[in-house]
Amino acid sequence: MKANSFIPPNRILMGPGPSDVCDRVLEAMARPTIGHLDPVFIKMMDETKQLLQYAFQTQNELTFAVSAPGMAGMECSFANLVEPDDKVIIAKNGFFGERMKENVERFGGIPIVIDDEWGTKVDLNKIESALNEHKDAKIVASVHAETSTGALTDPESITKLAHDHGCLSIVDTVTGLVGVPLKVDEWGIDAIYSGTQKCLSASPGLSPISFSNAAKEKIKNRKSKVKSWFLDLNLIMSYWEGEGGRSYHHTAPINALYGLHEALVMLSEEGLENSWKRHKENHMQLREGLEKLNIEFLVKEEDRLPQLNAIYIPDGVNDLESRQKLLNEFNLEIGAGLGVLAGKVWRIGLMGQSSNKKNIEYCLNSLAEVI
Amino acid sequence: MKANSFIPPNRILMGPGPSDVCDRVLEAMARPTIGHLDPVFIKMMDETKQLLQYAFQTQNELTFAVSAPGMAGMECSFANLVEPDDKVIIAKNGFFGERMKENVERFGGIPIVIDDEWGTKVDLNKIESALNEHKDAKIVASVHAETSTGALTDPESITKLAHDHGCLSIVDTVTGLVGVPLKVDEWGIDAIYSGTQKCLSASPGLSPISFSNAAKEKIKNRKSKVKSWFLDLNLIMSYWEGEGGRSYHHTAPINALYGLHEALVMLSEEGLENSWKRHKENHMQLREGLEKLNIEFLVKEEDRLPQLNAIYIPDGVNDLESRQKLLNEFNLEIGAGLGVLAGKVWRIGLMGQSSNKKNIEYCLNSLAEVI
Repeated sequence: MKANSFIPPNRILMGPGPSDVCDRVLEAMARPTIGHLDPVFIKMMDETKQLLQYAFQTQNELTFAVSAPGMAGMECSFANLVEPDDKVIIAKNGFFGERMKENVERFGGIPIVIDDEWGTKVDLNKIESALNEHKDAKIVASVHAETSTGALTDPESITKLAHDHGCLSIVDTVTGLVGVPLKVDEWGIDAIYSGTQKCLSASPGLSPISFSNAAKEKIKNRKSKVKSWFLDLNLIMSYWEGEGGRSYHHTAPINALYGLHEALVMLSEEGLENSWKRHKENHMQLREGLEKLNIEFLVKEEDRLPQLNAIYIPDGVNDLESRQKLLNEFNLEIGAGLGVLAGKVWRIGLMGQSSNKKNIEYCLNSLAEVI
Repeated sequence: MKANSFIPPNRILMGPGPSDVCDRVLEAMARPTIGHLDPVFIKMMDETKQLLQYAFQTQNELTFAVSAPGMAGMECSFANLVEPDDKVIIAKNGFFGERMKENVERFGGIPIVIDDEWGTKVDLNKIESALNEHKDAKIVASVHAETSTGALTDPESITKLAHDHGCLSIVDTVTGLVGVPLKVDEWGIDAIYSGTQKCLSASPGLSPISFSNAAKEKIKNRKSKVKSWFLDLNLIMSYWEGEGGRSYHHTAPINALYGLHEALVMLSEEGLENSWKRHKENHMQLREGLEKLNIEFLVKEEDRLPQLNAIYIPDGVNDLESRQKLLNEFNLEIGAGLGVLAGKVWRIGLMGQSSNKKNIEYCLNSLAEVI
């Protein structure tokens, strides 16, 4: 068959991810491919691990990038930590809580879903009640930064409650990492996963992940094998942690890892606190502009994620047509509503490289044209 | 922490993969990231599917790239097709048959492993006997091109035997695709997976895969849910096959897919038959040179893969030191032996872009220096 090279347009990515990938990261991905067992590559992997430890604020030895997108990071956490008949309390306040439930069920666990309204943060009282009711629960799972709603939840308090009741804490920070404060060790989180295409602004395809020693112990002492060979941490540990030469597990996505490494180098140059501050400040500027356009937020002020702004579609404005116009005429991508919020909200991402003053101004001006 | 950009050396990749990734593919990966639901991107995914259908020689609708390396393609095949208590006959003649067994067990199936010596092809008589003995078997799995030994097996005859006994046929062609003749529809294969970093010469990280209608039927009629959310084809089908807009499943590895697309465009320019011919001819040239160096092959002549040449390490030559010298002084990567062949053989890859006359000459001259 006949086919031509693919030349993508230059978009401005202000949806729920991917965010804008800058030239430094794109150029890194275009460097020559080398072998995944090449000592030079292994040294880069070791450095990537250290940089991820910095991003997560952890000393966890088992900190690495799963060789697949964020949803595989979710699966890796649940597949390894959930054993058959384990009760898992899931704090669900959006789309991704539902996915956690699916994960728990597929790995033979019993999900106890605690619902909060989409767009609100998780109610700690409900979690405590659930823990008191289900004294045999093993895990509490929550979403730090709900990509579907833009609500920020408090994983520190949830983790404390979990530990007080003898449970491990799994946290989804796919959209949270680097965009809002996160301190894995200080907060005591046991398993946490993210994606590369949100506030890290690398290309999608990898899932940064980290496990505490308590999580490692549970995994090592499992009675049944993990229902995945590709994601079994008992096997992956020897690949990422192996001393004196790694044993072959799978072929790492070499060039994607070059890109992640470069994005992490850029993070180390900016500094984590500065990154959190930048995301916050740019959010305030976007908010100001949106208010001038009489656009309202889904989430109440104190619970808003700076990097993911869910706003009500103004009355009388056509959802799909407006987004298509933004994409086709302004090369601007914003996100549609997911699930129950489809057709009701738009999601404006200010993640990573996309979180800058030029983008905000461009987005506000473009929005003013289409609404 | 302080870290610098990673600048990899320029290696010549003649191991078991990754193979040399050419500038066209590297440049494609550095193009601007766009959204995974952008209509322009979805059009590229559709074209990628058509190009993969060409590479596999199939009209299978369910043909796509799993968003993770080849081992996830293996897991995707077994996780979806193996139901609890299904008997699966595994034709094992190397390292990857063992992994198939692990997969079957983890998904609740009963593996019936038929062993052939490493370095030989699969004995069809043994498969037929196993099928006669286990009349309730559901699947026969085999490895088209054993990356650990360089042996070529005949998936056409194995598939015929499987079908004659009412079984589906799963074929691993991680190293086979594009390097040796493969005709998925003509041979009737039900599930087949590959990797991008072998004869396609894209960067590692994706797994091209294809399923027949019979395989799709088995998946749709499963009694239990697939033990993976990320790899559940019932969900992925709506992402790759969805008409009038895809439903969100996960964020595709955008830039990696740019690279795969470009590698497939290059394949369409060369033509599949020409690619098979080139791999064969270059193998003959390497073989001639190796014979002059008195180096012997592990696999007997008629069963050799042209793209993966397992050769005995000459007597008195130090395995590790020689490979380190090749890497450090000649920037040449060749592969070590795996499993029972560790320390006994080297594996010289002539895959994809690495399969060219210049590489062969360089490899032979370098080998002559170190042995």
